[in-house]
Amino acid sequence: MFFERSVKDYINIDPLQTGSKLTDDAKKVLLEWGDGYSICDYCTGKLEEISKPPIKRFAEELLEFLDCDCVRFTTGAREGKFVVMHSLSREYPDKKYVVVDANAHYSTILSAERAGLKILKVENSGYPEYKVNVEKYKEILESRSDILLVVLTYPDGNYGNLPDAKRVSEFCKREEVPLLLNCAYSIGRMPVSLRDIGADFAVASGHKSMASSGPVGLLCFSDEYKKVIAKQSKYKKGKEVEFLGCSARGVPLLTLMASFDHVKERVKKWEKEVEKARWFSEEMEKMEIRQLGEKPHNHDLMFFESEVLYDISTRVKKGRYFLYKELKKRRIHGIKPGLTKNFKLSTYLVPKEDLKIVLEAFEEIISTYS
Amino acid sequence: MFFERSVKDYINIDPLQTGSKLTDDAKKVLLEWGDGYSICDYCTGKLEEISKPPIKRFAEELLEFLDCDCVRFTTGAREGKFVVMHSLSREYPDKKYVVVDANAHYSTILSAERAGLKILKVENSGYPEYKVNVEKYKEILESRSDILLVVLTYPDGNYGNLPDAKRVSEFCKREEVPLLLNCAYSIGRMPVSLRDIGADFAVASGHKSMASSGPVGLLCFSDEYKKVIAKQSKYKKGKEVEFLGCSARGVPLLTLMASFDHVKERVKKWEKEVEKARWFSEEMEKMEIRQLGEKPHNHDLMFFESEVLYDISTRVKKGRYFLYKELKKRRIHGIKPGLTKNFKLSTYLVPKEDLKIVLEAFEEIISTYS
Repeated sequence: MFFERSVKDYINIDPLQTGSKLTDDAKKVLLEWGDGYSICDYCTGKLEEISKPPIKRFAEELLEFLDCDCVRFTTGAREGKFVVMHSLSREYPDKKYVVVDANAHYSTILSAERAGLKILKVENSGYPEYKVNVEKYKEILESRSDILLVVLTYPDGNYGNLPDAKRVSEFCKREEVPLLLNCAYSIGRMPVSLRDIGADFAVASGHKSMASSGPVGLLCFSDEYKKVIAKQSKYKKGKEVEFLGCSARGVPLLTLMASFDHVKERVKKWEKEVEKARWFSEEMEKMEIRQLGEKPHNHDLMFFESEVLYDISTRVKKGRYFLYKELKKRRIHGIKPGLTKNFKLSTYLVPKEDLKIVLEAFEEIISTYS
Repeated sequence: MFFERSVKDYINIDPLQTGSKLTDDAKKVLLEWGDGYSICDYCTGKLEEISKPPIKRFAEELLEFLDCDCVRFTTGAREGKFVVMHSLSREYPDKKYVVVDANAHYSTILSAERAGLKILKVENSGYPEYKVNVEKYKEILESRSDILLVVLTYPDGNYGNLPDAKRVSEFCKREEVPLLLNCAYSIGRMPVSLRDIGADFAVASGHKSMASSGPVGLLCFSDEYKKVIAKQSKYKKGKEVEFLGCSARGVPLLTLMASFDHVKERVKKWEKEVEKARWFSEEMEKMEIRQLGEKPHNHDLMFFESEVLYDISTRVKKGRYFLYKELKKRRIHGIKPGLTKNFKLSTYLVPKEDLKIVLEAFEEIISTYS
């Protein structure tokens, strides 16, 4: 049975999707390696060491790209977060707390919950910027000795705020608590150096930000934690317990590899993407659609607030679905059905010409209904 | 960058791969839904409830197909096993043991190890049949009260032995210990009814036996364990803890869906596959390549032993790689490089004409080197 994807030719501003459009090479490997377990044709027992297709070489290149000691493939950022929390909690059973920023993705919370850990939240500044107060990390870290791990969302998936990760890492180092960065929206979009930031762990998402099919991600970590993260089975030689022996054993990993050249190039153009996002934000504000989160903004993922659109929704027939329907009519995809007052979008890799069409659409919709 | 798969047009007898060749529809959905997170176009918060593409309907059809109460998508059989062990261990912390058959896949052991559980092994009969003595389950279950879970590999991935799962389930019911079936090599190949067997849990593998790209699998369970397996987050409404909110969020799931009509049809022809496997086994034995495991055999996955081929390997230049190289020359893929004395293969969905080519290859190789 075949299923058609209705939005495939739309202008796509869905924050989940702008960073994961496949390259042509990725599309080609999909067909070449689509059959289940085909990437295991020449496996000798460990995913990261397969040399045909060249997964091993790719893993080595990733170390340079991310400036870190070790990397493992996962089925996504959340699975990597759980590996870190679960393995650390087994190693340090007395440390029961994970410090998490208020802008954390829900899967960070679920990872902690699944690992049986308690959560300490670092609040954000609230409306309108929702900035995480990184100085609060210092306070929490100094106040207690039962903290297992600090997680920082870099940036978060709601406002696209990029907190000062280096500052948090300084506090963590001082108190000897490891730091995990959730880079689902940064690695693959912008340059990230684990050594430069001083993070012990980072997770990345292939299907969010690395031009890949899902589910695939990365878990990067420092040599210091290799024994914990990459712990070997007592029973099955060479198999790593936290990865159940093998993780992302399928074609999404090949799309990640096939798109890697493109990804390496695109992160170099990050400043241009930020510039474009800021321009878009300014244009939206001219229509009284206010951008929340950090300003000036440092990421393509942006959160907007619109009283105008909300007002319209309260009096039109289609109610709160009017915006979604109007955008759909114009072949624009990515703002969730039912949202009008608050919504997020991403301008990442969306051509300026297409963004102009989006801006015109908002203008038209507002003037039609006003 | 593009990577070519060298063996794509070969006759494939790799046990990992014979059940996961994509259907034409699955290939088409790969391109249609390859972009990361595209299956989430219309997600309202839960993977199993997405109606466009029709994941929800598919999940319902799976309940009927597998004759069970509940199903969740996973990234593979092992991830499903870990979900069961981990969630049960949190619910019943005093029960520390998992009973596992001696033919269990290594990932069953790793799942237990990762969940912090201890293992009790039910031995097999040893050479040449390696049959799991299912009566032993009774003995173990009656002898102790700290057993959390019983796992039965149905069939195992080494010998392709199909143990009497119904018998094991009777013992489990009597002692009120839940039973998990590892159906990575059965669901999608042969008819499996959870209700009929009386299993509480079963895991399936899309990329092993359901004509899918990896990584994707199924976890099926009875209503009785829904509260444990599908436990909701205390913090994030509607999100299931053990699945970190969402599991197989990518195109492999769509290939599973696209191939499902084909899979439903092929399981009806299982008897023919068993017949073909038995014929192949007999033909191999004529060359003094002995089939180990159950005889007559009940599955397409078979383990062979050959003194003849081993003898050759001890005196030829290419050593133990000679068999692999000779088969490769004949465009036959699936027997691991370096194996001669013991190797496994699968005849599943391999046309009889191709199997004849394989048999001729063995004959030729033996006569050339003898």
